[in-house]
Amino acid sequence: MSTAMQEMHTDIGLVNTIVARSSLSFINGEEGILEYVGSIDDLARNSTFEESTYLLWYRRLPSRTELSDFTANICSNYDLSETMWDMIVSLPRDASPMHALRTLVSALALEDPAVDDPSEEANMRKSMTMLAKMPALIAGFDRHRKGLDLVRPDGEATIAENFLYMLNGEKPTERMARAMDICLILHADHGFNASTFASLVTISTLSDMYSAVTTAIGTLKGPLHGGANEGVMHMLQKIDSVDSVDSFVMQKFANNEKIMGFGHRVYKAYDPRATYLKTFAEGIAQDTGNMALFEKSKKIEEVMDREVGAKGIYPNVDFYSATTYFSLGIELDLFTALFAMSRVSGWTAHCLEYLQNNRLIRPRCDYNGPHEQEYVSISLR
Amino acid sequence: MSTAMQEMHTDIGLVNTIVARSSLSFINGEEGILEYVGSIDDLARNSTFEESTYLLWYRRLPSRTELSDFTANICSNYDLSETMWDMIVSLPRDASPMHALRTLVSALALEDPAVDDPSEEANMRKSMTMLAKMPALIAGFDRHRKGLDLVRPDGEATIAENFLYMLNGEKPTERMARAMDICLILHADHGFNASTFASLVTISTLSDMYSAVTTAIGTLKGPLHGGANEGVMHMLQKIDSVDSVDSFVMQKFANNEKIMGFGHRVYKAYDPRATYLKTFAEGIAQDTGNMALFEKSKKIEEVMDREVGAKGIYPNVDFYSATTYFSLGIELDLFTALFAMSRVSGWTAHCLEYLQNNRLIRPRCDYNGPHEQEYVSISLR
Repeated sequence: MSTAMQEMHTDIGLVNTIVARSSLSFINGEEGILEYVGSIDDLARNSTFEESTYLLWYRRLPSRTELSDFTANICSNYDLSETMWDMIVSLPRDASPMHALRTLVSALALEDPAVDDPSEEANMRKSMTMLAKMPALIAGFDRHRKGLDLVRPDGEATIAENFLYMLNGEKPTERMARAMDICLILHADHGFNASTFASLVTISTLSDMYSAVTTAIGTLKGPLHGGANEGVMHMLQKIDSVDSVDSFVMQKFANNEKIMGFGHRVYKAYDPRATYLKTFAEGIAQDTGNMALFEKSKKIEEVMDREVGAKGIYPNVDFYSATTYFSLGIELDLFTALFAMSRVSGWTAHCLEYLQNNRLIRPRCDYNGPHEQEYVSISLR
Repeated sequence: MSTAMQEMHTDIGLVNTIVARSSLSFINGEEGILEYVGSIDDLARNSTFEESTYLLWYRRLPSRTELSDFTANICSNYDLSETMWDMIVSLPRDASPMHALRTLVSALALEDPAVDDPSEEANMRKSMTMLAKMPALIAGFDRHRKGLDLVRPDGEATIAENFLYMLNGEKPTERMARAMDICLILHADHGFNASTFASLVTISTLSDMYSAVTTAIGTLKGPLHGGANEGVMHMLQKIDSVDSVDSFVMQKFANNEKIMGFGHRVYKAYDPRATYLKTFAEGIAQDTGNMALFEKSKKIEEVMDREVGAKGIYPNVDFYSATTYFSLGIELDLFTALFAMSRVSGWTAHCLEYLQNNRLIRPRCDYNGPHEQEYVSISLR
């Protein structure tokens, strides 16, 4: 805003600007490494979403007692107030789930008596509230729009089990719950992506955690960010069979169109979140009779590898999470909401970290309009 | 995210980073100049909030016909759907107005059949919807929490008149409406402040205008941003009389405490938004029997000028808008919501402008945590 523009650094899109330090997640795009304190592959194979969230919030793995206290706290926060259940069923049935989720998470603030308490303890409690209640908000809205009775949470279940139970009205198999859990782990954090960064701008005014997460949901919604996994599924549905894959992909190339679920602004190697998920996606497709879908996905990967693998374009996390969610029987337009249900752990972790050393985020703007224009009276315009 | 950190520029808080170009508002903090295409002082003296919004959206003053079409469009959008009126009265009465406003604006998206239409025309229409309906959301919630009947908008009134009418249940005097209108003009835009910037991060994923404004409201809410005018009023209420002002201010200095409503990260000269507002605040205080309050404000300004005027610390826009809103009989905890009701014109104008040349805003993060930590089984922790 100053006229002293010579001291300014211009970076449209902030592609090369470091806006903060963080010890939460490390991404090495060249080598395909993602670490949340520990490696993402280790977590996907050995951990749970609850434990990974503990890791993001406290920056270390919990002891057995700490983990059981933490999960008990989550479980005791699953249920919604009557006001919130009522609000879900009052929403228009044709509303899109991300708009509904953004509104419902924002509404959670209205019944929190300490909503504007800025202490770290209160911020942890609010983060816990949102983490635990988002599955009920998403599953509840999906059942409401289908005209089904809402299902109250199972206070003994994990977040993954509980979500599938509230969504479908029946307990998931162990393998289904594990697939869901892995997807939640893999989406939990990813550096300063746009939604995380937007939540930091919000919290940097010393606003509150509900505002920050509401911001993040609205930002994740965009097709350049969280909307991609839904796009993968729409693409897969357009391909008749595994035999049509090759010509479909080649036609896309000929038309200069993007193949959804491939490539990433950050990764130039295999997306480390896709490796283990791919194995799991196959198993779950087999269990649920969706092998034709999985075969199509695998074939797309083969054709893509042949054509552009040398350029560092590989499947990203969206590619195999799409087939996994589809095999689990989840509606396509819920995919981005599931992303939010997972990423809330990363959003809140980053906000909690940023607040420890808060600085208002207020960038500069290069004004390129006119100056000293006169106000011309309307009768003379 | 890359390991090639040498190409990176670090700027915590983005104090010296230009993130985009804009022809919307020019701020020269050294000389105390703010221009929205035209000068803010001209607009405050001669224009209306409706006309200023037209100026921000279309970057020129309207002809008489254009202005009358524009205001007719605003008026025809004032009223809410039955669903929205019902939602207002279903909210907890003790909710804080900014949380309620964020939730209600988010809910406007749920009944918009073209909510995710990305065309500029649709984005203009959504901006119009929010601009026109926010007064009813704020006034409606205030009456609901007080147990009063809600007042439907007056389709013939200006935004300022209509808001005061829906809030108080009676038509405002001409001078009251003009005071409200001036406050709306003066708060309409202010470069890349945190709430505007946060809304740009949201829209940069090609999310939608409702998400962007919801983000902005949550960001404005923070005490380091829009929460300041409420703070001014709390301070004024703590001072018994004009005779206690000098010792009150000196005591604050002695305790190293801030005087609310003075100084600004950008302005080192008199805040150009405070000049005309000060004159008007005096008139309205006189009309409404609040001269004691105004005299206290004037005295604070005198003492501050004597003590720190030489350092470039002057009253900012919050200082006199606080006394103006108080004289208009508006509750203290609505002040920031009024700020939002005005700034929505700037937020939407900036999003519309940014989308003409969109680039995803995704900054970098400097990871300072550990690497290659092993996953230790829980039994060994």
